[in-house]
Amino acid sequence: MIDQDRFAERFREMSAIGRTRNGGVHRLALTDEDKDCRDLLKSWCKEVGLQLQVDRMGSMFATLAGRDQNAPPLLIGSHLDSQPYAGAFDGPLGVLAGLEVIEALIDHGITPEIPVQLVNWTNEEGARFRPPLVASAVFAGSTPLEHGLASIDSDGVSIKEELKRIGYTGSVDPGWKIRGYIELHIEQGTTLEKADAPIGIVTGGVGLTDIRVQVFGEDTHAGPLSMRERRDALVGAAEMIASVPNLAIEDGEDARMTVGRISVPSDSHSVVPGLAEFTLDIRHPSGVGLARLEEKVRVRFETIAVERRLEVTFEKLWQYPPFEFDPDFRLAIASAARSNGYQSLELPSRAGHDAWNMSRVAPSALIFIPCKDGVSHNEKEYASMEHMVAGTQVLFDAVKAIAMNG
Amino acid sequence: MIDQDRFAERFREMSAIGRTRNGGVHRLALTDEDKDCRDLLKSWCKEVGLQLQVDRMGSMFATLAGRDQNAPPLLIGSHLDSQPYAGAFDGPLGVLAGLEVIEALIDHGITPEIPVQLVNWTNEEGARFRPPLVASAVFAGSTPLEHGLASIDSDGVSIKEELKRIGYTGSVDPGWKIRGYIELHIEQGTTLEKADAPIGIVTGGVGLTDIRVQVFGEDTHAGPLSMRERRDALVGAAEMIASVPNLAIEDGEDARMTVGRISVPSDSHSVVPGLAEFTLDIRHPSGVGLARLEEKVRVRFETIAVERRLEVTFEKLWQYPPFEFDPDFRLAIASAARSNGYQSLELPSRAGHDAWNMSRVAPSALIFIPCKDGVSHNEKEYASMEHMVAGTQVLFDAVKAIAMNG
Repeated sequence: MIDQDRFAERFREMSAIGRTRNGGVHRLALTDEDKDCRDLLKSWCKEVGLQLQVDRMGSMFATLAGRDQNAPPLLIGSHLDSQPYAGAFDGPLGVLAGLEVIEALIDHGITPEIPVQLVNWTNEEGARFRPPLVASAVFAGSTPLEHGLASIDSDGVSIKEELKRIGYTGSVDPGWKIRGYIELHIEQGTTLEKADAPIGIVTGGVGLTDIRVQVFGEDTHAGPLSMRERRDALVGAAEMIASVPNLAIEDGEDARMTVGRISVPSDSHSVVPGLAEFTLDIRHPSGVGLARLEEKVRVRFETIAVERRLEVTFEKLWQYPPFEFDPDFRLAIASAARSNGYQSLELPSRAGHDAWNMSRVAPSALIFIPCKDGVSHNEKEYASMEHMVAGTQVLFDAVKAIAMNG
Repeated sequence: MIDQDRFAERFREMSAIGRTRNGGVHRLALTDEDKDCRDLLKSWCKEVGLQLQVDRMGSMFATLAGRDQNAPPLLIGSHLDSQPYAGAFDGPLGVLAGLEVIEALIDHGITPEIPVQLVNWTNEEGARFRPPLVASAVFAGSTPLEHGLASIDSDGVSIKEELKRIGYTGSVDPGWKIRGYIELHIEQGTTLEKADAPIGIVTGGVGLTDIRVQVFGEDTHAGPLSMRERRDALVGAAEMIASVPNLAIEDGEDARMTVGRISVPSDSHSVVPGLAEFTLDIRHPSGVGLARLEEKVRVRFETIAVERRLEVTFEKLWQYPPFEFDPDFRLAIASAARSNGYQSLELPSRAGHDAWNMSRVAPSALIFIPCKDGVSHNEKEYASMEHMVAGTQVLFDAVKAIAMNG
């Protein structure tokens, strides 16, 4: 069994870093707040006697040795960075649960057959440096290390520079062979809450496409030119954005489409905007569905542009195909939930996680616990300690089962 | 007669400052580029032998003495600051025409009865420091000096600080008594161009209301929550913005409504925005029309907010009532156009100008010349030298007529 009190105390301590007035956290990747989180994790790993390594992307790894020192480790963890003014659960839950699992193994005198390795991935959120999940993508070999290190924030500062600034430039090349990867995370949706199930066994990940849309019109003064003579890029963009939810709803329950960023470079109250830019995030469990949504959006946006004498361009920023998690790992999780008497449910993951990248190179799995009203990336994000403990206990039993068998 | 070549050469030299790759200018108020413009104007005033004064808002005044040294001066001029990536005509035309008028009076050995004073107003555009027209508002006594100096840009830097930085903190209190004010400007609309008239005599200014709109929903992750469960503030804001042009068009030919700034504080591709903010600029020649448009917008926006389970708030940033320019000054301009054989046309001004503020404290007038396709606040802004010379000549004759009579 895990130590609930120790886990709860550590969770409280970690949640105090970068705390916002509304009770959330603001800990963008590689800021001073992220450094404080890393330093705290480092001090705990030292206390526990774990060997800590940092890879060249700044991801942190703490290893519990196995009987077979040379066997590829079973990796468990998540991330400590956050979205702007977000919650304290998205990420830290998986990291602190991973640490608790290792400490509980030590407490019980269990030496696993293979090493168990805790990971804290750099810049999972992608809120500061784009794209998200970049460190696990580098680890999985799907993004070159140089590209990852060159990712810049909106001020043009790179991951490489910020790692150096906060003292987390690692020396180990990412990408060693691993036995598998398991991550514990809040659902960020309402499926488990509605079903009153404390444990979600994630079947796989939805496909994800991110597009930058630019709408071109003509800058002009807000007064003289008649309304009909204008070519207002923001009005066109607004009509496009307003059309997005219905395009998704008409497509069916599985579709998600979101415009999360918008900018008007002219940015003056008295200038009719000649350019408006926004991002469109499309998610669907099937590749066919993803392509269909993208096509629907293009047709609709192009129609709006023609009607308003504007031009529209699309640039694909990144794309992840849908995939399935490892069946054996999912079985181990289901078994762990059952043996602890927790009801579990299978469901897809609609949010990107580092487990998505890891599933390309090793057997991987993702465990969900409920969060209140499905709210996440928000200061109101909340998961109960009861559910966090349940998730950590299931992670512990699944890790034990896999790591004992090697 | 004015000296066309001298005017053209000075216009070319001024237009080279802050020049953009696309042939416009980028000279936000009190930046290094604005300083360069000011320094150039200062050097010309020195060449011509004019006494230069700077008031405490940083506005520059160069005086040609009249026979009656103590008579209130006739003020002529405009502004040298620009919108972001804008044209070289909006503002500098009026300043350089004013300088040319004074030089031409000297050339012809004309000593006017009263002083003629050239002005370059600080921060006319309001693109960097809000509100626009702030220096003439302080001069006219409708804004306290302390408020004007405390205006800040988006980085929190004040006009007072920037005046000090670029060396244009003046010692003279703004607001001395003047005989009147005349400004020459490009129309920024298509009325003169369509009528093929080189001279516009502006009857008055439209009323203007600027509002900040905030739309509140709930931040959440872009994946898990279903589309119907979301409360997406940006989708609501987009529907509001898309509705604006039709509200204006349905109201009639005199209405103008523009959304020029928008921001989403969460600003992440994978966060459903819980807050979206935008500005709405409303213009109408009648006060009743202005209030009617504002009411239509409020009703529409509130309906959209309710339908989408959002909240919307309105904050009035500033408001100018409609007004008429001085009838005698308008007659002097009409007479000057006629005597030079230029066709002229009466029309309202739909863009705010410093002449709007000055009309509250002294007889004022505004002369327009055509600009290509009505395009302004845009790098493509263009006015022909022929029209600029015509406008300057009309200004010369009107100034001569008024200043000779005192």
